[in-house]
Amino acid sequence: MREHIHLQKDRFLEELKDFLRIPSISSLSEHREDVRKGADWVVNALQEIGMENVNILETNGHPIVYGDWLHAQGKPTVLIYGHYDVQPADPLELWESEPFNPTIREGKIYARGATDDKGQLFIHIKALELLMAEHGSLPVNVKFCIEGEEEIASPSLAPFIHENAEKLSADAVLISDTSFIEKGQPAICTSLRGALAMTVNVRTANTDLQSGSYGGGVPNAIHSLVHILDSLHDEGGRITVENFYVGVPTLTDQLRKEVAAIPFNEEHTKEELGLDHLYGEEGFTFKERTGIRPTLEINGVTGGFQGEGVKTIVPSEASAKISCRLVGMQDPQTIYERIKQHLEKHKQEGSHITTETLIQAKPVSLNSQEAMLQKAADAYEKVYGVRPMFPKEGGSIPIVEVFGRVLDTPVVLMGFGLPSENLHAPNEHFYIDNFTKGIETVCEYLYKL
Amino acid sequence: MREHIHLQKDRFLEELKDFLRIPSISSLSEHREDVRKGADWVVNALQEIGMENVNILETNGHPIVYGDWLHAQGKPTVLIYGHYDVQPADPLELWESEPFNPTIREGKIYARGATDDKGQLFIHIKALELLMAEHGSLPVNVKFCIEGEEEIASPSLAPFIHENAEKLSADAVLISDTSFIEKGQPAICTSLRGALAMTVNVRTANTDLQSGSYGGGVPNAIHSLVHILDSLHDEGGRITVENFYVGVPTLTDQLRKEVAAIPFNEEHTKEELGLDHLYGEEGFTFKERTGIRPTLEINGVTGGFQGEGVKTIVPSEASAKISCRLVGMQDPQTIYERIKQHLEKHKQEGSHITTETLIQAKPVSLNSQEAMLQKAADAYEKVYGVRPMFPKEGGSIPIVEVFGRVLDTPVVLMGFGLPSENLHAPNEHFYIDNFTKGIETVCEYLYKL
Repeated sequence: MREHIHLQKDRFLEELKDFLRIPSISSLSEHREDVRKGADWVVNALQEIGMENVNILETNGHPIVYGDWLHAQGKPTVLIYGHYDVQPADPLELWESEPFNPTIREGKIYARGATDDKGQLFIHIKALELLMAEHGSLPVNVKFCIEGEEEIASPSLAPFIHENAEKLSADAVLISDTSFIEKGQPAICTSLRGALAMTVNVRTANTDLQSGSYGGGVPNAIHSLVHILDSLHDEGGRITVENFYVGVPTLTDQLRKEVAAIPFNEEHTKEELGLDHLYGEEGFTFKERTGIRPTLEINGVTGGFQGEGVKTIVPSEASAKISCRLVGMQDPQTIYERIKQHLEKHKQEGSHITTETLIQAKPVSLNSQEAMLQKAADAYEKVYGVRPMFPKEGGSIPIVEVFGRVLDTPVVLMGFGLPSENLHAPNEHFYIDNFTKGIETVCEYLYKL
Repeated sequence: MREHIHLQKDRFLEELKDFLRIPSISSLSEHREDVRKGADWVVNALQEIGMENVNILETNGHPIVYGDWLHAQGKPTVLIYGHYDVQPADPLELWESEPFNPTIREGKIYARGATDDKGQLFIHIKALELLMAEHGSLPVNVKFCIEGEEEIASPSLAPFIHENAEKLSADAVLISDTSFIEKGQPAICTSLRGALAMTVNVRTANTDLQSGSYGGGVPNAIHSLVHILDSLHDEGGRITVENFYVGVPTLTDQLRKEVAAIPFNEEHTKEELGLDHLYGEEGFTFKERTGIRPTLEINGVTGGFQGEGVKTIVPSEASAKISCRLVGMQDPQTIYERIKQHLEKHKQEGSHITTETLIQAKPVSLNSQEAMLQKAADAYEKVYGVRPMFPKEGGSIPIVEVFGRVLDTPVVLMGFGLPSENLHAPNEHFYIDNFTKGIETVCEYLYKL
């Protein structure tokens, strides 16, 4: 199989480049048509490798692409999930090559979506193409369910899974949208944090006011906003929202050991990120803070005059975007309510606060001893010569919890990314070596099932 | 004179509309050519009313327009100052009519620059036109010095005044760029606060990071920024920068009485601004806070993801614009250094701060008993039937201090604006009644000299 992959690698990369050229940014309405182009591209790719019943399924948002091949009688069924949408690309000026003009440099392919998730999704498509080419059939039954709203927290896919549980039923859900521990050390993620994303808007007067006439005498929306935002953490980096930590698992010695077992080089990380210091909740390690502890991060802030030069106003409006990572029994809606209460309690006189929730996803935990995960580990070991670790990841893939719960099926997070691949950031890229080895690993896995 | 004004009012307003159509925004480099058009317009207007030696004087920034008429032998010389540049117009969506499409509604002319300062400057041009038309000469010698950088704190005019002190020498500097107390109650401002405007930029990692992988474990530039911004005031609204209040005059009973004498209707102000509460430094009244106390306001803030939807990043950069109003002996450069020290002291680990100063202007105080001011008061009284008050204004006109000091001349701040005219904000306007009465008042004043 390795030689087949090697022989066709250049063609595969050209096809992947085509996919990466589509700016299928699901969060921006001006890219609506591009997102649909992404769906069409997937439809075509699935049809070309012999998938059947390939369809675009309309939703209230961006479409879902379905396709299957169900002729392996008596064999297990694998549901392959991935997403063809991508994050926004800004700030554009920090990209070394254009985000939607895929470029290969030093064994890596650079483009928005290279690792998250077009490159990783494409691994499965090419693995099935090779298996079909070799045998004219597949060793297992396969269903594809590819969405275009992962980066906006899968609002259409969750109800779709509920309504189509029968159609999607499988013995395992296979997802490649996570990362290795580091180059050469594969990982099957067994824990994902939940997520809450929200906006907060502060309003004071009915218009911006001249600071010469009103400054010092009226509420300033930015003062009020920075006050409530700063109040969300204490000096030790702990989140101060009342009852925020209810439902967070106690850190046992066993759990600390498991987390500590995942290698982490602090000096290397600081150097890579250009940081003098790491920072976070006191009493926890970097891996604990980013993997199993809940967080609250301000993702963006805007208000008042931001142009060139000076405008001496007292701004009347300011807003921020906030997101939380949640763990254990933390419920996103409950956390949202608690944050709202906190903001109201800390707001300054004369300011009005409005909030909106944009994403809600529950935390998820998977069992590493499950056969479907152990067989995936065998496949990795065969290709990479190293048995994967089973880390608890800090990220969120909101739909994983829904797949596991609604389909009552193990979810296998067979990732081929690297932590250093700048996902959601400028200069996102994907190691081509993991792309080709990924195809090989997926083939191995499907044989083993 | 009143009839002459009335007869030509419509033409005057059409001419003013022409002036207001020029988007001469001095702070935005893309409007550089428009600012020059503003200068050309002033040159033409001065030539048309018979001014001599009318010239565009180049500077490192936007040009200064000079013109004079010096044939009133043995009579005093008045230097008329004004500015043809305007503030930026954003946020555009809050304007009821376009900022550079002047529109008359209910006796007011709406446009950016209507009151600040094109409308007020135009009063002088039209007053001189009428005097020339009536007598073929003027009762005093007149010099015009009109700049295009007032809204960016007059960086070129200050050195220009130093270099041309002889050319600009006068018995009074006459400026209309301030406001009445309220409709029907004129004012000659006798105190202007100084100003400091600066930017602060916070940088953490070398790129934005995915909050799933790094959130909670690395410094967040917005967290760091809101922390230092919130640290600038205490809960009582007092500025916490060390030694900030050094040089601020002690509030004597006499001064409190003077300030309290200026009428102020708190309920009316709150209603007008749509505010439940006013806000400010504890222990001081609104008029004290906005007139004679120093202030520190955050004018704008920006950082991270501000687009539609969600981008769960840990932002690596965030910045704010800050401006102070200064009083008494407060020196802008010293205050800037003190704020920088405060920011460094309060910054979070792993964040780097850079600052830049954009405006520096010293506070200024004028003597209300000076003959040149008392004659101006007489002119107002004759036209409006009310003697003007002599308030201490909260705003800053940086060049006033330079004119007074370098030319050693009384400065007469003969304003015709109203506090409610939204200067520096959407829907800026100018009362046409004060425009016509202003022309009459200026004519009266020049006769009285």
